[in-house]
Amino acid sequence: MDFTQAKHTSQRFDEDLQAIKSSLMELGGRVEKQVIDAVNALEKADKELAEKVIISDDKVNQREMRLDEDCTKILVKRQPAAGDMRFVVAVMRAAHDLERMGDEAKKIAKMSMKLGEAGEEAPQGYTEIRHIAAGVSRMVNESLDSFARFDAELALTVVEQDQIIDREYTSALRELMTYMMEDPRSIKRVMRILWALRSLERIGDHAQNIAEHVIYIVKGKDVRHSSLEEVNEIVGK
Amino acid sequence: MDFTQAKHTSQRFDEDLQAIKSSLMELGGRVEKQVIDAVNALEKADKELAEKVIISDDKVNQREMRLDEDCTKILVKRQPAAGDMRFVVAVMRAAHDLERMGDEAKKIAKMSMKLGEAGEEAPQGYTEIRHIAAGVSRMVNESLDSFARFDAELALTVVEQDQIIDREYTSALRELMTYMMEDPRSIKRVMRILWALRSLERIGDHAQNIAEHVIYIVKGKDVRHSSLEEVNEIVGK
Repeated sequence: MDFTQAKHTSQRFDEDLQAIKSSLMELGGRVEKQVIDAVNALEKADKELAEKVIISDDKVNQREMRLDEDCTKILVKRQPAAGDMRFVVAVMRAAHDLERMGDEAKKIAKMSMKLGEAGEEAPQGYTEIRHIAAGVSRMVNESLDSFARFDAELALTVVEQDQIIDREYTSALRELMTYMMEDPRSIKRVMRILWALRSLERIGDHAQNIAEHVIYIVKGKDVRHSSLEEVNEIVGK
Repeated sequence: MDFTQAKHTSQRFDEDLQAIKSSLMELGGRVEKQVIDAVNALEKADKELAEKVIISDDKVNQREMRLDEDCTKILVKRQPAAGDMRFVVAVMRAAHDLERMGDEAKKIAKMSMKLGEAGEEAPQGYTEIRHIAAGVSRMVNESLDSFARFDAELALTVVEQDQIIDREYTSALRELMTYMMEDPRSIKRVMRILWALRSLERIGDHAQNIAEHVIYIVKGKDVRHSSLEEVNEIVGK
């Protein structure tokens, strides 16, 4: 099934659907940048960049609310059939996930400001952050890409990546706990790294959600609680 | 506006809406119990109870997926007008929040099993857990109550409570960090308490979300990013 190729009786309706997709993609680009900026601010203790991330979260929230309203209007006005309904609902959900990613980026930026005040350079835990941030950024990018192209196979790889990130996150947590035990004076600082890491892991979860919305649009199946084998089966890779 | 008193031309439609509301309330009752059980399992190091919580999360997930499907079907089949549309969308969102609460309850249950293995009694941090758990349980209960009765004023009090919980959570975190610094051997154990606390705080956030969905249904306004003053204004309390 490829609902995107279906033509609607009303050209206006096609335009409406295209418009919410464009808005979603724009929001996605914005949030992706927020995540990258937040991690950079953390790594470089760049206070200005952190502030930029914190301030622009408000814009992300506003845009998500507007997109949500637009989607509700389409639902009421156009009364779409099943395939389009799934698409509009998925756009609302993906927008919500993006908004939540933005919140997490903001949290990372806040942590970076607190860490910056402490004035320490290249402390422990940054290697873990950098590594996981790279993986999560890729997930965010590919989840948006899979939405843009309704590419269920790419979405599947995002779901797979999240499992790797989760394992790496668990092992990074263990590492950070060791630092704390070895040097209890570092506890406060390491806890901040730990919260930033936690936020990154959550961003990865939201990227996975977006990928699952793509599979829902393309395959019509809710795969949130399916095993990776089952998702593989559904995507038919 | 009280959309609940509006009569629809089709009695079947009224029944459909009533049915998804009942399903939501049933799911809510189930999740509320999960949260209480998880906290009890933690406090009493009750392994059996923890296992029960972990196992029954699957049922919560299944029910949420079914409810979500039912809502989508209603949207497609009945093509509701604006007020009912808001209601159906809010039910889907509230169900999703409940499912996420169930996930957090499961995490608490898992932490309780790990803490139980360590075999320590009444360790530090339990006072904080107990206190915050009481507040969060109340929020969960009242958020569901406000949904059952479409009571925007009660929903507003839930939103207010979340701010109190957030402050208490922050202060509890600080307390736990002090324990860790005073006794680095306790780090591993205190971290588990900390994750459980974090899950409780997230459950509170989801209860707040549900309260916001209620305000959305009753007042037609998206208050997620509004200040408490603005929400007060909207609810007109």
